[in-house]
Amino acid sequence: MQIKVYLTEDEMPRQWYNLAADLPSPMQPPLGPDGKPISPDMLAPVFPMNIIEQEVSQERWIDIPEPVLEILARWRPSPLHRAYSLEKALDTPAEIYYKNESLSPPGSHKPNTAVPQAYYNKVFGIKRITTETGAGQWGSALAFACALFGLECKVYMVRISFDQKPFRKIMMQTWGANCVASPSTETKAGRDVLAKHPDTPGSLGIAISEAVEAAVTDSTGKSRYALGSVLNHVMLHQTIIGLETKKQFAKIGVKKPDIVIACAGGGSNFAGLSFPFLTDKIAGANIEVVAVEPSSCPTMTRGPFVYDHGDTAKMTPLLPMHSLGHDFVPPPIHAGGLRYHGMAPLVSQAIVEGLVKPRAIGQLECYAAAVLFARTEGIIPAPETSHAIAAAVQEAKKAKEEGKKKVILFNFSGHGLMDLAGYDNYLQGKLRDYPLPDSEFGPSLRELDKLPKPKAVKTGKW
Amino acid sequence: MQIKVYLTEDEMPRQWYNLAADLPSPMQPPLGPDGKPISPDMLAPVFPMNIIEQEVSQERWIDIPEPVLEILARWRPSPLHRAYSLEKALDTPAEIYYKNESLSPPGSHKPNTAVPQAYYNKVFGIKRITTETGAGQWGSALAFACALFGLECKVYMVRISFDQKPFRKIMMQTWGANCVASPSTETKAGRDVLAKHPDTPGSLGIAISEAVEAAVTDSTGKSRYALGSVLNHVMLHQTIIGLETKKQFAKIGVKKPDIVIACAGGGSNFAGLSFPFLTDKIAGANIEVVAVEPSSCPTMTRGPFVYDHGDTAKMTPLLPMHSLGHDFVPPPIHAGGLRYHGMAPLVSQAIVEGLVKPRAIGQLECYAAAVLFARTEGIIPAPETSHAIAAAVQEAKKAKEEGKKKVILFNFSGHGLMDLAGYDNYLQGKLRDYPLPDSEFGPSLRELDKLPKPKAVKTGKW
Repeated sequence: MQIKVYLTEDEMPRQWYNLAADLPSPMQPPLGPDGKPISPDMLAPVFPMNIIEQEVSQERWIDIPEPVLEILARWRPSPLHRAYSLEKALDTPAEIYYKNESLSPPGSHKPNTAVPQAYYNKVFGIKRITTETGAGQWGSALAFACALFGLECKVYMVRISFDQKPFRKIMMQTWGANCVASPSTETKAGRDVLAKHPDTPGSLGIAISEAVEAAVTDSTGKSRYALGSVLNHVMLHQTIIGLETKKQFAKIGVKKPDIVIACAGGGSNFAGLSFPFLTDKIAGANIEVVAVEPSSCPTMTRGPFVYDHGDTAKMTPLLPMHSLGHDFVPPPIHAGGLRYHGMAPLVSQAIVEGLVKPRAIGQLECYAAAVLFARTEGIIPAPETSHAIAAAVQEAKKAKEEGKKKVILFNFSGHGLMDLAGYDNYLQGKLRDYPLPDSEFGPSLRELDKLPKPKAVKTGKW
Repeated sequence: MQIKVYLTEDEMPRQWYNLAADLPSPMQPPLGPDGKPISPDMLAPVFPMNIIEQEVSQERWIDIPEPVLEILARWRPSPLHRAYSLEKALDTPAEIYYKNESLSPPGSHKPNTAVPQAYYNKVFGIKRITTETGAGQWGSALAFACALFGLECKVYMVRISFDQKPFRKIMMQTWGANCVASPSTETKAGRDVLAKHPDTPGSLGIAISEAVEAAVTDSTGKSRYALGSVLNHVMLHQTIIGLETKKQFAKIGVKKPDIVIACAGGGSNFAGLSFPFLTDKIAGANIEVVAVEPSSCPTMTRGPFVYDHGDTAKMTPLLPMHSLGHDFVPPPIHAGGLRYHGMAPLVSQAIVEGLVKPRAIGQLECYAAAVLFARTEGIIPAPETSHAIAAAVQEAKKAKEEGKKKVILFNFSGHGLMDLAGYDNYLQGKLRDYPLPDSEFGPSLRELDKLPKPKAVKTGKW
């Protein structure tokens, strides 16, 4: 009885997979506030040019640099587990597999892109990377990567998280990053907000504004900004997850999964697992691909496909994506990484084209699935990850009803050891779901009506 | 460049190694309060007989049951890492390797014994296991193991940790354990303490008394007690660590390490890594074996080898061990798992016989080594683990001074994600060392003078 499948370091994928090369419709460019396409060189003050080249690349395969592989090999290839105990508890004929991304030192899939981003900045001559973080998953992953490459790391952490969740901040500091509460007095963006609202809890939108400003106004020219999700190059870097999984399935004689599941906030862990399987689906394989979001932040299931800003403050370019509107404020669910109004353009387009089926699940069902998982498989999941588990449980029950022996695969994107307060609330019966009336989201979408709508073709094939 | 060495599940050791079979002197029996040896059947109300048999076994090799292997395979075999980045930072000619025990779901080596202990209780017909926990590493590991075998788990957690460190408690509850603050009103031992000291912060000694009482007074006869360190069977279960490491060294052509290092509180992670190498040392191999303790709790370096109680309240039998006295109260260092007055009898005897060299290091040096490790190798160590790292750094510097290409191996016993407050204090310069005058420990040792002294032969061979 084999519990998990390892690959050797020699078997690690040497290239990332770029879905943009295979999508039926071409990707739509980002737009400036005037509605005109943004060219790569306009992004040069924000990102190093080697990353911008990846962002706009149409190449199907992109080499992973050797120094990046050497860092990833600290915890990769990650194991693919067979969830025998969960299957038994559900009495399902389905085989359930999960790819375990929780074994990275920061505890999630985020370092898969933090490491190459730090590397590309390093070889481009950059000395300092700035970023924002909400609950701290991304900030700690970037702090980790910067430490290993000897780069300075500056993290603007949303004030309320900075105060309420001190442990992620300590992680960043242990890795040598400089982490400050946002809004801070260090940037004009921060000072402007503080002047008007001295007691503001902060927001991801404000923190993005500060991090971008800190990068572009550095007079040495040696600072750049980094983003942990949404953008094409981030999706690209995460595809090592799915590429490894395919090799692992081949080792144990599983031809293909029937269902591939991951949670999606900005979309990166979902893209990482699923994109290498989408290429097979585009080529005709019968694979159902499910992206799971919280029903309280239903970007994919209820948000339109529009051009919208990535941040509340409208500092970022307009991206073609599913969105609830850049001023949408999600209810206070514990899965902080899924509380985002938009969705990665690559994932959004795959949804519009019918390749990906989104699904929304409430947090009570997710926590129930997470506790079941912890008590059977033994690992306590991140609240974000619990959404993927809940969908896998739904599918395993369906397989039982249908009497079908399906192969279900999901991404175990991170552990929950830094997010235990949510479990405490759940076990004490203090949590609730947040069903949303339509009126609660999307007002800002109307102001986008003047802009061109992004195009994508639903072929009806999938 | 190979970063780490994996073994497949097929290559997992199928037997544990029992050092008692190879020690030059026979192990001394535990004694009752009257100074007379305790027989195995006297322990039957406390432990199931299959575990008692292991405790007194002289067999060199003991089979690991298949259901135990299937659970251990969730995260084992654990990787052996080459610390290239740490070597580079230290500019040492030494090769540094570490065995990564931090990848278990509870984050440390503790489940290596929690899982077999839960298994043996299960097959013996036990329904509920009771235990105590200080900071919570052991309690969470046992809660994890009990969840996977469908056993009830009752944890008495020292009151001050219960209140100050809620996250370990939530981990236990998520795995379904019932965790209460000790002293509790549920036992006579707890009520007696509360009657006299209603505001007591509790102690490990009191918690042990409660857990043992709860096991032996269960009228169904279906409860037993479990201990996470110190005892022979716990050392035995941990030897899978060193046995795997030897196979991993063989895979990459390393004939033997020159120095084997682990931290030691009760002794279990140290025994786990080092005992399989001690058998080679006994047979003549030139291997230095170092057990590292905090200079503020110098059990091995300054405590005599005596018969002493395992707990403050003198509820446990007398064990032959290095001890600072059962009423020693260590200073408030962050490495909670190393704040113990005694040391495992097997480890103690190996020290007396000259096989193991103890070393004491202050917490400031340990935190400095831990931060260096986090910023080079990328993983944030548990405060306990930082003691092993500090000794490895000392040895790597010594190798540089001597110009010798030594092979250094240490046990990375656990990650520090649940212990970040100590890093915060260290980085803010708030920590200090605690040099101890002799007068601060050992007064209770004098009362033991009436008892027979345990015997062990220092052969002078090592």
